[in-house]
This record gives sequence, structure tokens and C-alpha cells, in this order.
Amino acid sequence: MHPQAQIDAGTNIEHYLELAKLAESARFDLVFLADSAAIRHGNLRALKRWPQYMAYFEPTTLLSAMAAVTDRIGLVATATTSYNEPYNIARRFASLDHISHGRAGWNVVTSSNESESRNFNRDEHYEHSDRYARAREFTEVVRGLWDSWDDDAFIRDRDSFTYFDPGKLHVLGHKGEYFSVRGPLNVARPPQGHPVTVQAGSSETGLEFAAEFAEVVFTPQTDLERARQFYRDLKGRMAKYGRHPDSLKVMPGLNTIVGDSARDAEEKHRFLQALIHPDVGRELLSPILGGIDLSACDVDKPIPDDLLPGDTNASKSGLADIVHKTKVEGMTIREIYLEHAGARGQRTVKGTASQIADDMELWFESEAVDGFLIQPPHLPAGLHEFIDGVIPILQERKLFRTEYEGRTLRENLGLPFSASRYAGRPPEEADRRI
Amino acid sequence: MHPQAQIDAGTNIEHYLELAKLAESARFDLVFLADSAAIRHGNLRALKRWPQYMAYFEPTTLLSAMAAVTDRIGLVATATTSYNEPYNIARRFASLDHISHGRAGWNVVTSSNESESRNFNRDEHYEHSDRYARAREFTEVVRGLWDSWDDDAFIRDRDSFTYFDPGKLHVLGHKGEYFSVRGPLNVARPPQGHPVTVQAGSSETGLEFAAEFAEVVFTPQTDLERARQFYRDLKGRMAKYGRHPDSLKVMPGLNTIVGDSARDAEEKHRFLQALIHPDVGRELLSPILGGIDLSACDVDKPIPDDLLPGDTNASKSGLADIVHKTKVEGMTIREIYLEHAGARGQRTVKGTASQIADDMELWFESEAVDGFLIQPPHLPAGLHEFIDGVIPILQERKLFRTEYEGRTLRENLGLPFSASRYAGRPPEEADRRI
Repeated sequence: MHPQAQIDAGTNIEHYLELAKLAESARFDLVFLADSAAIRHGNLRALKRWPQYMAYFEPTTLLSAMAAVTDRIGLVATATTSYNEPYNIARRFASLDHISHGRAGWNVVTSSNESESRNFNRDEHYEHSDRYARAREFTEVVRGLWDSWDDDAFIRDRDSFTYFDPGKLHVLGHKGEYFSVRGPLNVARPPQGHPVTVQAGSSETGLEFAAEFAEVVFTPQTDLERARQFYRDLKGRMAKYGRHPDSLKVMPGLNTIVGDSARDAEEKHRFLQALIHPDVGRELLSPILGGIDLSACDVDKPIPDDLLPGDTNASKSGLADIVHKTKVEGMTIREIYLEHAGARGQRTVKGTASQIADDMELWFESEAVDGFLIQPPHLPAGLHEFIDGVIPILQERKLFRTEYEGRTLRENLGLPFSASRYAGRPPEEADRRI
Repeated sequence: MHPQAQIDAGTNIEHYLELAKLAESARFDLVFLADSAAIRHGNLRALKRWPQYMAYFEPTTLLSAMAAVTDRIGLVATATTSYNEPYNIARRFASLDHISHGRAGWNVVTSSNESESRNFNRDEHYEHSDRYARAREFTEVVRGLWDSWDDDAFIRDRDSFTYFDPGKLHVLGHKGEYFSVRGPLNVARPPQGHPVTVQAGSSETGLEFAAEFAEVVFTPQTDLERARQFYRDLKGRMAKYGRHPDSLKVMPGLNTIVGDSARDAEEKHRFLQALIHPDVGRELLSPILGGIDLSACDVDKPIPDDLLPGDTNASKSGLADIVHKTKVEGMTIREIYLEHAGARGQRTVKGTASQIADDMELWFESEAVDGFLIQPPHLPAGLHEFIDGVIPILQERKLFRTEYEGRTLRENLGLPFSASRYAGRPPEEADRRI
């Protein structure tokens, strides 16, 4: 627990509203909220020291509250396609888009863990390919529902006693493999046409999904050359879906540790790393090792040979990495978990504000990123340090805005308005039953 | 369309935020949002003149925005048990309760129409008894999930590096007829223990559900004697569930038309009634007549004999009422639909502010109500008229508060805090896997 971290964030709404206002005052593109439909399961001896994903605000309600106290910043929430219904998700994000006057984004995810499935009437989670097929159809249905009403359907003409033009109301009538959804949606067309679609999967299936649907991609990238490859690869897949590379923004996560000097930043980083409790460190490695219990192990020695599994159902590359570090490099348990724990899988950059700005500029100029998802190591102080130190330098170099370009998230990201699928088609019959 | 009505309410967030602030400044108990998971279906010739339930904000997102700009007023949203999952509903209402510091309420409904079922993978809606059995189990699961964490589970002790006490975290492990939900919920226990449970069904099954679960009941009551019977009947059913009658508040809807004189109020009412377009009037009667098309009928003549059905699958008493009015009383179509349309099924009271206060006092002193759900005929002007005219009189008579009693909705309604089902039991084992 960092002494400056907001320790009651999970129930402190004022903390979040202040963060949103702070990020807006610094002209950030958006606030992003991750999500899970379950607490993290595991060993309570570790979990009691590790609040992430244990108890927190539900994202669409939290962002709606933020919308009421901000004017320009984008509001992006994660919602799973595995344990929701498309009609409900289409409604909530359309509603958030209206509440915020066009600042909503939806991070489309699939759920892969058993702890979620058990909260939703299932003993096993969906298979990977099944999850993505469902996500794909789910996304298509949601977009179809967002087009239920034309942008100008609500004429609200007192003289003719008419609220809407029935020719501009469309019945989706979707019948697919996973969903049968008639529509129309009971929310007017969102101000952005469609809220911005965000995606974060990086499997082959995930990349294809992103190339077809995503407008913002969050991705963990720790190596510049691999990040450039990822960027080229992903944008290169878009043409076959009739999309221009500029209509998708790649934003890797970045854990920023700002110091008064390089040495000060190193010191801050060491201090943060030392805060990771050994119980949490062991718990972090356990799932990669197929659930093996390390609680009896000394963290300052390597993982004992007889505890290293031969194979795993989880990530094979993750296991191979730990085996290599243990057997070849002779790393201790603590050394290994510190590498995993620090930036929660994202890249850490540490240094003075100007060194961090240099790093960000290099990645941007190298065509590895369109932006970054800034994830300070603790809130709110870590965000203040980034805003006060790094942003003015980026602004001076013309790499970051000094004023919002527009009112909607699309306008600020340079993404086009989403035209309706019915645009240019003849109107529906006005005198009909629906 | 009333000339003073907010014509773009369905997409105007500022309108709603202002209404919430206005109601709070007048010390109302709560804001209530009805809901449906579909647009109203029917004849577009009528629907285009009838915006209710066509396109509007999703309630939990709208109330979350209201929560951020108010401090004391309760925030009650409808959410159906038919087309949601209990884990998702438990999360959103717990989250709203935290966002609002204890002002959330959930109006538990079941969905009865085909237009909703077709948005959720079903061709037919649930049968009535099935709907309520599902609603009952749904409600129990939601309440169980709200008890996942004890009120004091989050100790957040920096010295011992501990966020929560594992002995105060409970796994629900529900396996029932409709739902299998393991838990725990990933939101801390709501500030009210449980958000307030609201209910509005008035069938025999609905009344039993209310007696067992509801803390506020909304009900259409147009006759004082029948309202007293309803009140006694409902409260009389509570003892067998171990509940005290005071732990449930009966609040019939009330459409208030405030005039400078009784004659002025009558005039306002006539003006409002005249705004109901004949197409809308015919559409209102059509479902009661089993879907019969009245569009070719002269509204100033009675329904032609050959169009009156002999029986119906909808409300039999509704059909009998129309047949009686047509055949025995000789009423015209317009006369009949005006009776149905005006207060949307609720009671209308018209007169001077002091006459309206008299009426409300009589109903309250007669033990027919604990309060009212005020539904002004148009917003925001109709609400202003009620607040400026009627509330000061009620306050003078000590029938209405001049300041909020507490911070939470429960405190302001005089409802007890919801103790956890685990209160008084020994703590869970702290060192375990979950």
C-alpha cells in the first residue's frame, strides 16, 4: 500500500469524480474502466492484500456519474459479451452517450475465467472460439440496435402533433446463431452514431476482431520493435474489412514513474516494488504454474525443481518463461514476481518528465503507437505527477493538445461519425404496425 | 403536446438533472423511473404522437448521473427480473447505492409483453406464475449477493498491509431452480445494507411478493374505500413473513392538477384531455379489445356492436368495463378513451392547492396511503405548480417534512437498515481459498 494511494477507492465516489475532473483539466482523451463480472478467486491470505478487482464500482454507473460532472473527456467502460444481453448493453451505452453528449466508448471483451461463469449459471466458461463468435454476433446486434432510429427521427413538431417520423424507425429483426433480437432499441440514436468501440484482445482471433470492429485498441507492449510489428500487423488487417488504418487508434498501456532525476525515479520504482507483499507475489505466479501452491517457499530462493510442472493448460509461453528464469538464470521467486507484478503486464517507463516525454515521442514517431493508456502506479498522486511534469513538455513539442478539438470522443480522437446502416436508403413505410 | 411540456425529454439530460435538483429542493422522498426493455409496439400512426416508452434514458445510468448532482433525494429505478441476470442487477444497484451514499432503490418487476421477449431470444413471454417464481428467486439471489461482504469487511489497515478481513467475506453458493450463482459480489456491501426494494404488481401473486419483499409499493388506486382495503389487505399479509406493517410504505400514484380556483383546475384538465389525439385514444383502447382496429371509427360515436369482441385473452374486467360503457351507458369512443388516457391509470386530483392538500390529507388520515407517487401531467411546469402550491400547505399542516431526516433513502422513509444474513454468525475461516 503506497502511502499516497487512495486506500478506499472501491467505495469512494468523490475520489473517482475528482480523478475524472483532473484528467479532463489535463485534456486527456478518455477515462477507461476495466471490469470483471466476479471477484478474483484464489488464496485469501494473498487476496486480502490485493484489492484490485475485489470490490469496486460497476463501470457504466460510475461513468454516468462522471458524465454529470465533466464536459469533454471520453468515458470508456468494459462490458463482457459473455454474460450480458445485447439489448441491455446497447441501451446502457446509448444512454451513456446521450448523458455525456457523445463521449461514450464500449470496451468489448469476452470472459475467460471460471469465477465469472459460476456467477452466471454455468459451471464452465465458454471455449475461446465460441466466446469470440458470440462476441462478434453480439457486437453486430448492438450496432444494429444503435441504428434503430435515424439521427433525425425525432422531429418533435408541436403543430402536427408528431414526435417522430415513422419512416425513420427501423426494426432490426436479427436472428442469428447466438441471438434473436427484434428491436427497435428504446433509446434514440446515440450522439456519436455509435459509441466508440474499444478492444484489448491480442490473440489471432482478437486481432481479427479488432481489425473488423475496433476504433481504439489497448494492448500491453513492452518492446519497441515488437510494438511496431503489432501496429503494422493490426492496421494491415483492416483493408479487407474496408477500413482505413487511421480509423483505429493503437494505445498501449504505460506505467509512468516520474522522478526529479533518473535516480529519484529509480528510487521511487524500488519503493513501489518493495510494497508488493510476498504473499501477493506468490499468488501472482501460482496460476502461471498451473495453480501450484508456493506458500511454503522462501521467496528469496528459486522455485524448487519438484514444484515446476512439466506442462500447463494456461499460457505455455508463460510457464516456459518462468522455467527458463528459474533453471537457466537462477532467479529467485521474488525476482520473478517483481517482474510480473510491477506494471500489471504493461510497460513501465521511469525517469525525469523529459526522459518520459522522450520515450513517448520515440514510440510515437516510430509508428508503434497512436497514443498511450496512462496507468500511473498509484492514484491520485501518480496522475498529478504525470500531468504536472510530462504533459507540458508534450504540449511544448506539439505532441499533445492544449484544448479539446471537439465535443464528442470521436471528434477528440479524430474518428469519423458512425453513419447509420440505413443512411441513403428509402424511408420505411410510415403507416404500419410494428 | 402541452405547450409547457419538455418536448425533447427523451434525450435531454439537463432536463432530468434539473428535475432531480428541483424535487430535492422540495424535499421529495425519491425520484422514480419506470422502465421497459422494448419500445411500445402498435400502430405507428398513433405511436408517433405518443412518446412515452418509445425512446428514453436507461434508468440505472440516468440515476447515476442524477446521484452526482444531488445529495439527499432517493433514486429508484425499475429493472426487470425476466431479462436480466441477478449478478448484474445486484452489482448495478449496489454501485448506485455507493455512488449516491445510500439513496438507491430497485423496483422489481416481471416482464409480461411479447415485445420485450422478442428482444431477448424468446418468441413468447414467460407465463405469469413462472415470471413470479423467477422474480422471487432472482430477488433472493440479489439480496444474498448484497451480503457478500460484511459492512465492516474493508479494514484498509496500512500497518498490517490488509485491505479486508477474509473472515467477513461470504460465498453465496446459490443453486436454485432458475439460477446458479456462486458469488461473492464484487461490490462492497451497500451503504443501506440493501437498496430499498420497491414493487408495483397488484395481482394475488404480486401482493404476496410485496408482502414478503417490498418496502415501498406503488399502486394505482382511484377509490378511497378500495384503497383502504388494499392497504389493510397488503399490510395484513406481512406478519406471516415476520415483517412489521411499518416496514412497507404504500404510495399510490397521484396526477395533480393545480389551479388558481376549482374552475381553473377544471379548465386545465379539459385542456389536457383535449390534447389526447384521437389516434392515440383509439390505440389505447385497442389492446383491451383484443387488438381490434378502431382506426376507421368515428370517435364521437359508440364502438360499433360488431367490433366488440365476446371474450379476450387480456384483462376480462377491462373488456367488461368497455362493453358496459358502450352498450349500457351509451358512451362514445372519445368519452371512454379520455377516462383511460388522462392519468395513465392513476388517480387524478384537481382543484386549488389547498383542495389538493385536503384530499391528500384525507387519504393519509384514512389509512389508505403512507405517501403518494406524484405524477404531474406535464414536466417541468406541472411539478413546479405542485411544489409551489401544495407542498407549503402540507408542511404547514405537519404532513410533510421541511428538512430531510437523514442521509439515506431508508432514513428518509423511516425504514430500518438491512442487517446482513450473516450478522451474529461466527466469522468465516480466514485462511482459505475461494
